Formats: sequence, C-alpha cells, structure tokens
Amino acid sequence: MFPCFLREPAATPERYQLWLGSSSSSGYAAAAAQPKQQKQKQQKQGKQQQKGGGGKASEEAVTPKSEDFSRWYLDVVAKAELADYGPVRGTMVIRPYGYAIWESIQAYLDRRFKETGHQNAYFPQLIPYSFITKEAEHVEGFAPELALVTKGGGKELEEPLVVRPTSETIINHMFAQWVQSYRDLPLLLNQWANVHRWEMRTRPFVRTLEFLWQEGHTAHATPEEAEAEALAMIQLYAEFATTQAAMPVVVGRKSKLESFAGANVTYTIEAMMGDKKALQAGTSHNLGTNFAVAFNTQFVDEQQQLRHVHQTSWGVSTRMIGGVIMTHGDDKGLRLPPNVAPYQVVIVPIVKKDTDRASVNEAVDKLTAALKQAGVRVKVDGNDMKTPGWRYNYWELKGVPLRIEVGPRDVEQGTCVMARRDMPGKEGKQMGVPMEASAFVATVQQALGQVQDSLLAAATAFRDANIVDVSSYEELKAAVAEGKWARGGWAGSDAQETQIKEETQATLRCFPFEQPAGPHTCFMTGQPAAEVAIFAKSY
Amino acid sequence: MFPCFLREPAATPERYQLWLGSSSSSGYAAAAAQPKQQKQKQQKQGKQQQKGGGGKASEEAVTPKSEDFSRWYLDVVAKAELADYGPVRGTMVIRPYGYAIWESIQAYLDRRFKETGHQNAYFPQLIPYSFITKEAEHVEGFAPELALVTKGGGKELEEPLVVRPTSETIINHMFAQWVQSYRDLPLLLNQWANVHRWEMRTRPFVRTLEFLWQEGHTAHATPEEAEAEALAMIQLYAEFATTQAAMPVVVGRKSKLESFAGANVTYTIEAMMGDKKALQAGTSHNLGTNFAVAFNTQFVDEQQQLRHVHQTSWGVSTRMIGGVIMTHGDDKGLRLPPNVAPYQVVIVPIVKKDTDRASVNEAVDKLTAALKQAGVRVKVDGNDMKTPGWRYNYWELKGVPLRIEVGPRDVEQGTCVMARRDMPGKEGKQMGVPMEASAFVATVQQALGQVQDSLLAAATAFRDANIVDVSSYEELKAAVAEGKWARGGWAGSDAQETQIKEETQATLRCFPFEQPAGPHTCFMTGQPAAEVAIFAKSY
Repeated sequence: MFPCFLREPAATPERYQLWLGSSSSSGYAAAAAQPKQQKQKQQKQGKQQQKGGGGKASEEAVTPKSEDFSRWYLDVVAKAELADYGPVRGTMVIRPYGYAIWESIQAYLDRRFKETGHQNAYFPQLIPYSFITKEAEHVEGFAPELALVTKGGGKELEEPLVVRPTSETIINHMFAQWVQSYRDLPLLLNQWANVHRWEMRTRPFVRTLEFLWQEGHTAHATPEEAEAEALAMIQLYAEFATTQAAMPVVVGRKSKLESFAGANVTYTIEAMMGDKKALQAGTSHNLGTNFAVAFNTQFVDEQQQLRHVHQTSWGVSTRMIGGVIMTHGDDKGLRLPPNVAPYQVVIVPIVKKDTDRASVNEAVDKLTAALKQAGVRVKVDGNDMKTPGWRYNYWELKGVPLRIEVGPRDVEQGTCVMARRDMPGKEGKQMGVPMEASAFVATVQQALGQVQDSLLAAATAFRDANIVDVSSYEELKAAVAEGKWARGGWAGSDAQETQIKEETQATLRCFPFEQPAGPHTCFMTGQPAAEVAIFAKSY
Repeated sequence: MFPCFLREPAATPERYQLWLGSSSSSGYAAAAAQPKQQKQKQQKQGKQQQKGGGGKASEEAVTPKSEDFSRWYLDVVAKAELADYGPVRGTMVIRPYGYAIWESIQAYLDRRFKETGHQNAYFPQLIPYSFITKEAEHVEGFAPELALVTKGGGKELEEPLVVRPTSETIINHMFAQWVQSYRDLPLLLNQWANVHRWEMRTRPFVRTLEFLWQEGHTAHATPEEAEAEALAMIQLYAEFATTQAAMPVVVGRKSKLESFAGANVTYTIEAMMGDKKALQAGTSHNLGTNFAVAFNTQFVDEQQQLRHVHQTSWGVSTRMIGGVIMTHGDDKGLRLPPNVAPYQVVIVPIVKKDTDRASVNEAVDKLTAALKQAGVRVKVDGNDMKTPGWRYNYWELKGVPLRIEVGPRDVEQGTCVMARRDMPGKEGKQMGVPMEASAFVATVQQALGQVQDSLLAAATAFRDANIVDVSSYEELKAAVAEGKWARGGWAGSDAQETQIKEETQATLRCFPFEQPAGPHTCFMTGQPAAEVAIFAKSY
C-alpha cells in the first residue's frame, strides 16, 4: 500500500484566492457546482499516467523561498501535505502529516500542564451572546470576529449563540458556580478545543477562521498567585518553543494596545520567521478580576470575606505549526526539528535488481525495529515505483530530519549512509554508519540531537542578526523598511504607538523580559524610558 | 491544596429542568440575569461554614438507584463531578473527573486506530449547507437536528453554514480532490472532534446538543474491502467495550429503519444499562458508494477505468461515559472499571494525632511511589478536614476501584488495608496487605484485575438474565413491559417494525452476529425468518 497522504494536487491560483480575501462564504460551493465530472475524469486519467510513470522529483519542487516567501509558504503547506483548503473561505483541513506535528505539540504541552497541576476539562462551544457583552473590553475586541448560530433544530433561536472565539466568558459562568471557598482555589484547568474567529485575511495555520488550540483558565485567591501563574505559563511556552520547536523566542510583555481584550497584562512569545516578520506564537494573560467582576466569580476567604478571584488564561494554537514551517524551511521545503517531527528518520531501501530485494529488506527491517525499540519515530519508503532520488527529494520536501539509505552494497559491508536534512549535499552525509543495532541507534540519536541543536542555533543567529537597536524614529523606519526588528527605549503614548503602526506597519511586539542595561531614552520622544521595546511587522 | 474539582454544588430542580425539554436556548441566561449577588453571598458563606465543619458523608449521598434510576444517574453525574450543565439548553461541561475517563477511552482507541493503519486529521467544522443536501437520505436524517451559522464577522452569510453533525459530506468533498488512483487507496482517516445535533430530549453524556467523539472515514477500491473495514471497526469497538469499559455488548447489524442516514449497512454495539434499557454505544457504517456518487469521489483503477470509491465511517462518543456509569453504578454511586478509571487506587492516610503524621505520610509516600512506578494511577486523599469515613464514602461515590487505608498501627505492623469498590463492606476488605513495595504492587495489580473481571462478569450476568426469547408479539410485549430485551425470529416489514415501536416503545436494536441455531420463525408474521433480532427500549 502506498498511502494516499503522500499525494497532493498542486496549489492552483484559484485555491490561493480563497486565502486572499474573497468575502463570500459560499464562493467555493458555487464554483464546485460547475459540471466537472468529465473534466475530472480526464484529469485523473492524465495524472494517473504521469504518476504511474514515476515522474521526476522536480514535479514537486516548491517556489524558492528567496523568490516569493508567501508563495513558498503556501507551496510547502500544500506539497508537504500539511494542510488543504476547506470549502468555506479561510478554513483549512489539517492533513495527517500536519496533524501529526500538532500531536507532537499536544503531547509535550499536555504532559507539562499536568505536571504543573492543571487538569483538562471541556466547556460547551456555543455561548449565549449576552455573555460576550458582559466584559466591556472583551466584547469590543471580539464582536467583529464572531460567528453566530441563529437557527437550531429548524427554528430561529431567541438569542443568537456565539461560536466560541475563546472561553473566558462561559468558563467564568461555571467558575462562579464552582468556586465557594478559598479552599477551592487555585482552580487550574485547561481545554483542548477548536475556536472560530471571522478573520478577513487568512493564511493556513497562521490565521484561519477555525483553528485548534489549548486554552488554560485558572482562578486564584490573590493577585500575586495569578501573576505567578501567568508568568509560569509563558515561560513554559518559551521552553516548548526553544527545546521542542527549535524556535528562539523573545519573551515579553505586550503594550496596552496589543493586549488581550479583557486582560490587565498579556505576556507573549515572539518568534522571527524566515522573512523576518514577527509571529506571536503563544500568549498568557493576567486577567485580574475583570471577568470575575463581570460574572460575579467570588469566594469566601479565611476571614469569611467574599472576594473576587484573580484569573489567568493562556493559549497556544495550530499557528505554532506555521511558525515551525516559517522558522526552519528552506528552498527545498520543510525542515522539521526532530522533537516535533512526525517521522524523525526515513529509511530508503535501494533495490535495483530483484535478487537484492530480500537482503536489503531484511537489513531495513532490522534497522527499523532497532529504532522503534529505542522510541525513534521511523518511516520506511520502499516505493519502487519511484527512483531513490525522487524519494530523497520527496522526504526532504517533507522535512524529515534524517535519511538512511540502504543498498545491496551497504548490506554486504554492514554499513549504511545517513543524510542530515539541515545540512545540504555531501556536507550532511555520513558514509559507513554501522548497521549493528546498538551502534546504529546511538549514531542516529546523536545525529537527531545535532539536527535539533543546529536548527535552533541557525534560527537564533538569523534572528539576532536581524534585530537593530534604534535611537530615533528615523532609525526605526529604516530598520523596518529592511524588514528587520527594531529595538529601542520606549515611553511613547498609545497615540504614538498607533502612529508608528499606521506609518510603518510595524507594531510594538513586546517589552522583552531580558532588557539591555539602562538607562534608556525613548526613540520617539527623547524622554527617559524605563524599558526597551521591540517593533516589527508581524503576521 | 485541596483541588476544587472535589467540590460540586448539589443538583437543584431548576438544573434538572434544563435537561427535560425547555425549548428556549436563552432561558438559562434570562434566569441568570436576576439579581443574585446578595443571595449568592449568603449561600457561599453558609456553605463555607458547613464545609468548614467537615460535614457528614450523607450530605453527598445519591438518590438510590432502585428508587429512581433517572434521578440516580443525574445525581451521580453531578456529585461524582463528571459533568455540569452548560448555559445553553442541552449542553454540558465535562468536568476534569469525567474528562479523564474520556482521556482513557481516547488513549486506547487512538492507539488501536493507529495500529490498524489509520491516521488522524482534522476537517473544518463549518460545512456549506448545500453539501448536506447532496446525499438524499443524509439530508433527510440530519436536517431537523442542524445548528446553522448565518452570520459571520458582523455580516449575513450568503449561504448558511452547518455546524458539523458528522463529517461525511465535507470529507467526501476533500476525498474527491485527494483520490486519483487505486494507489491512493485505501484512505484510512480518523478525526477527534466535537459535533452538534439539536436534540430535544437531552441527558448528560447520553444525548447532548454538543458531544465529543471520534469519527473514522475510509475509502476503498472494492466493496469487499469496505465491508471488511466496517466489520473490523465494530469489532474493535466491541473489544474496547468488553476489555476496557467492562461493558458486555451485543454486536450486530441495524435494521434498515435504524441505520445511519446514508449508509448501506450499519453495525452496532448494544449495551444493557442498569435499568435494562439498551444503549447504542458505537456504530460502524458501510456507506457503499452513496457519498462517493453524491460527491463524485472517483479513482482510476488498474485497468484505467474511473470508479467510485467504497466508503465506511464509524464513531464512538462521550456517550460511552454514560454507558460506563449506567452499566456499573450502584446505590453508593459510580463504580469504575480500572482500565478507564482516572484513579485506579485511592490511598487514605488516617492521622488522628499529630505525632503519627510523619510516619504515616512517609509510608503513604512509599506506597504511592511504588504504584506510580508500576504505572498504576493513584490518588492520595490526605484531607484532614474530613474524617476517614467521609473520605471513604466520597471516593466510593467517585467509583475508584481500590482504596488503601494506612493508619499508625498499620505502619507499625508493616501492613495496610485494601478495600474493593465492587464488593460491599467486609467482603471486599483485605487486611494485612504487605507494605513491602513489590508485594504491595503485586497485590494491588491482582486486585485491579479482579475488579475489572468481576464488573464485566456482573454486567454480563445481569444482561443475560434480562434477555427473553419470544415467539409471539404478545410475548414481546410482556418482556418489554418488564423492561427486558426481547429476542426472536424477525422477518417483518418496515411497517411492522414501526408498529412495534409505536405500540411498545421498543425498537429493533440489532440482528446479533451471534445467532442461536435455526431454523427461526418470525414472532410477528409466523413466517420463516433468516435471523433473530433484539427489540428493546433504548436511550
């Protein structure tokens, strides 16, 4: 069986359109209504013949990253079979290879959440519209993006229901019932769920009408505990990004304008993508008592006084997959950090004569078993319909960190060839890797560690080379015009922050926790500044 | 910290109402708008004092199962903190203890799906309304239950979007694009997701407006492969039910009237609940080419002919949690099979004098570490605010399979006490269990196996004692009137099947795969019958 998920129709201009701003939700359905059966038959038979003939690897090549980053990204998403376009504008199908990356992310985060005392729960997706309006800033932030259910079971509903864009409101509705006493606190919950935000400009993984995420929601007796929780979770996200996704991130605090609608403070991890734009890859909010006051979430403290709880919420989404793609990908396609890769190793048996088949397959089976035993995620691509070169390119496009090649001569010599995805050509190839199980596994594990480290090191070097310290608005404009991040003292007003956004498209990404030694001067006002901030264009 | 999820406000009559047919989606929100702050404060302070005083265990008692099964069920769901009521009629919040059961179910099924070659993916939740209408039976079956999004981003949509009740349509829309050649088949996908069905009569876990499930969707080149897949998956569900949930199930085929809207054949696992009603606990459908024709999902076969794929779909949902509760629960509350229990063992340290605390805690820590090391899910309840008896009752209500009691005298003697949840009183108590780690772990693991087996045996005996063989419609009526399942030869028409449903409320649950030796005579028509069928009232 040659599994279907190895196949993908090429992205066509029509399909890009769906991600570039058509406002009709049914445009696609209308297009699909055209008589297409005959055309489809011809297409399928044509493709069939082409595929059957074992096409060249160049069929699958992606637009070079340097030529058009945006198209490169969409090509990689499509051709590495990470996602496809849903029928409703701005929605996506997460295909098995993309979903497996999400499963890696989930496995790590879920384990860490539980280790830090959180429990999973599930809250209803449909929220009475009135709930959203209870917290003033929250409704202002989310109202324009809501999807509304107005009919159910064939009837018009008395009150429209909001399709969850985030769950603070419904969770507070429940917390208000569950929390009675200080002994019920802290309340530490997490939910894995889908959410909807009616965005106009969408992009697979990065910004979609529907996405998958986790949302943590906690309630505490004191402001200090809530603050400690919000900080602990943003640090947990930073650890995930660094150690698993090999994404160096700047951990910091959002400006008031860029904070979550309803939060007192928003903490963020900001990552630099391959086009130097910033990606907000995870956030953690100290909500103070804002939702508690709106929903009357109170507890009786040790002195028998009724008090509002102090809350946090924090989330990471499938956007993280977009971050991994755009941090590490190169002209050949995806490059996946081993810790999040669906397959860490692909083994390609090379069989040119039928007489070699048995011995090569036997050797491959042994190597596969040894890796599986050691907990390494391994895939064997024994598809003889394709040349070894085609298969090499194919799995390079899919970003598998290590490739093992096994031919008849290798079997005779008791060695095989290992190629690292992160290093091009001969430089990344190691000949004579011993096939003896324990030595083989040790070599592979060491190489996986090296790939993980080298991807992080490369991304860190790239990022650091593209952050510019600025001391005037002119310098900021110059840095942003080059696509770089600008860092400088900031004591400006909200109006000045908005001015910079309007004039340069750069936004205040964060006040980094790690601050250079002061004193600082605001690049905008020339006044003393308590902190430096980072400004950049972003996704 | 005494975690909040151990606490639950009592179910009040108002809250039951939400599950018994109010048709207003916003009724709850209206009720919530009453001025309640003052009342809530008094309540909270009152409860606080009551709880602070270490109330009696009887506070938490559930309605006896024999007295009112339905109320017993709702009590168990509420007091064992499995679920709570969402603000929208018929929705539920799955609380951490209930969600942990779902995680056990997921872990087993997900592993088995992957072992049998399936991959996870995620498809958009919002489906163009036109898709639902493409398969004639499908739209007829689902149209009355749909929730519709008609507004997005502040605008009326051109075409309403269906909030997924199941995903055959959108998945076929994608399969039609992905499947080209016979080499793309079989296509074996699964999705973990939430779905909505606008049901009028709801009950937590058993039937809710929104529920969590997995839905498998596969496409095959031949009808034989699709049939084999549909059968393999219902058998996998049966294995899960039997070996994990300790629910004996009858595996069989649905009648045409009871089949999935759009399927050629539906297979089912039917379980008997404690009130003898049947619960359809999982289904697997052979969809034939019905959706493939509607969505033009075709492939080019080895002879270069364009053919429609043959498909299956199959699902298990959070309803399974309701099945576990209603299969095993008793007057004291929940009884959980160890294989799906969030905690398999609860350890209750008994400290009456402060001078005993250190030695008891040290012993408990050792036992806990030994169990964790062996992969046993263990909880320590060292809450001194409550008496040991209160804690015993509490964890019995929560259905933990084994309880370990450790007091100062136990520590001196190097032994402890073990109590089985499935056996009442002294019968289930074992004194003198050695505390030495390896002997202790072995004793616990053996006992867990015994609890798992005995729950299955008890449920099987109960079921078998309540299935009656009938040879006339009168006999069926008598059996059904006693609440039992009726089994007899069936060769009746659809009209006669409907007549039985209208006259007795019993439906044709299935034609069991395991058939008694023939020949059979239809109990309705007196004609020869190829098979026996089971009729019963159901959830």
